[in-house]
Amino acid sequence: MTGVGSAEAPIGVFDSGLGGLTVLRALHELLPGEDLVYFGDTARVPYGTKGEKTVRAFAQQDAGLLVTRGVKMVVVACNTASAFALDYLREILPVPVLGVINPGVRTALASTRGGAVGVIGTSGTIRSLKYQAGLAAAGLSEGQIVAQECPLFVPLMEEGLHAHRMTELAIEEYLEPLRAAQVDTLILGCTHYPLLKAEIAEFMGPDVQLVDSANALAVAAQDRLGELGLLRADATAGREGELSFLLSDIPWKFQEIGARFLGKPIENMKTVGLDEMEEAGHAMEQL
Amino acid sequence: MTGVGSAEAPIGVFDSGLGGLTVLRALHELLPGEDLVYFGDTARVPYGTKGEKTVRAFAQQDAGLLVTRGVKMVVVACNTASAFALDYLREILPVPVLGVINPGVRTALASTRGGAVGVIGTSGTIRSLKYQAGLAAAGLSEGQIVAQECPLFVPLMEEGLHAHRMTELAIEEYLEPLRAAQVDTLILGCTHYPLLKAEIAEFMGPDVQLVDSANALAVAAQDRLGELGLLRADATAGREGELSFLLSDIPWKFQEIGARFLGKPIENMKTVGLDEMEEAGHAMEQL
Repeated sequence: MTGVGSAEAPIGVFDSGLGGLTVLRALHELLPGEDLVYFGDTARVPYGTKGEKTVRAFAQQDAGLLVTRGVKMVVVACNTASAFALDYLREILPVPVLGVINPGVRTALASTRGGAVGVIGTSGTIRSLKYQAGLAAAGLSEGQIVAQECPLFVPLMEEGLHAHRMTELAIEEYLEPLRAAQVDTLILGCTHYPLLKAEIAEFMGPDVQLVDSANALAVAAQDRLGELGLLRADATAGREGELSFLLSDIPWKFQEIGARFLGKPIENMKTVGLDEMEEAGHAMEQL
Repeated sequence: MTGVGSAEAPIGVFDSGLGGLTVLRALHELLPGEDLVYFGDTARVPYGTKGEKTVRAFAQQDAGLLVTRGVKMVVVACNTASAFALDYLREILPVPVLGVINPGVRTALASTRGGAVGVIGTSGTIRSLKYQAGLAAAGLSEGQIVAQECPLFVPLMEEGLHAHRMTELAIEEYLEPLRAAQVDTLILGCTHYPLLKAEIAEFMGPDVQLVDSANALAVAAQDRLGELGLLRADATAGREGELSFLLSDIPWKFQEIGARFLGKPIENMKTVGLDEMEEAGHAMEQL
């Protein structure tokens, strides 16, 4: 495991698919000198409709793959995996692990003006109750927390249906209860949703603050690496960090969708087979 | 491998998820005395958005799991897996393998009145060109074959959005080109689509024959087992065959969605872990 614990090692980021590229993008903007390795489990996406045990087994393989690549930190850029597997990954991995839920909760708490806070996500994320528990722990009452599953947002975004009537209908259907509850802050609790930010903002109105945890997560990663003395010393000297991409499958619309999430075309891409995923998962059991 | 090649062995059926239950239902209705084992790869569903190599690796594990359960035949009740993996499975499996595409093509050819034939399916199925090749091999010209990807039908059906405005919009968007081409026959090239049959029939009009390959596949299975002397001798004596279900994940809405596809509640259900899937896949390499 070359490089584990070394400041020169890359930061690892994984997601169920391509949505986590929004997190990679935020990390690259905040820490441009750091090398970043992304793994997207495109062969088994989505995670948000699946059960806890399954998501935990997948997350072990995903994180394991990054650890065997020598990363100095694992960033779980998937809300469902953060909800179901973060504590477990912290137990088994030899490197620090950051999830996407706590940074989102903290940003929402800083944003709310005493009204209600909404959170939207996959079925798995919302039913895990992790966001709700985080908000309640900070003192919000039950009536101040409004959670809503939005299962069709992921396939709509993967089909690239922005500004499409179907997407408008889905927004109306899912977000009307949040608008009616007059939330003042809305957590976009899925890495796919930042792509819908403009449409959601228009529907919710200008008084509702949208929280995209990508930026908060990037700040949390910077803080944590700083505490551990693991930030690259040469990162401030104009070094351009390397981005590399591992995927378990090449989706039909990979280049198009990937570029939309990342904000530029994806280069340095390799695929990872089922066998390698299995080995990476088992390797984490033997640490 | 107890029971392989024995008439008393069950028939194995697999699909990426729960859609193949429509095929299981047709088999059970035609061959009520036969035992049936269903495997749904609910942990990795959908297959229709994923690449050939990935689908083939998954199909090897799925079929392997059924073979290690001693089935006398494997029915691939998934159009995408039939498109990408049928020839491969026939090479590696020790039992006969039936796919869903040829029965669908044959039924469509028997139904068409010399006009155009339409086929709808997942991105993977349509881009594999298997349906188009099957229709062309029977003499249809390029202009008589109209193929259309319908990627949102699967998530819409998994969310149970029948008679919903979003589903109406998706039908309009996907099927308008087929209506404009005046197809006289339309193949429902995905096991999820029979759930939408009424809505599709209404949109396409009474002159368009809809082909659901579940029934044609059940007849093909009966014929093939008959030829091989593998039909149960006691099946005609009022024996009620046993249905059992294996799933790699329990979806959030499992009972509700499962019953909708199967036509009755699902009993005898067991989950299968990633480890067992891996072993089943590797076992097929060693045959």
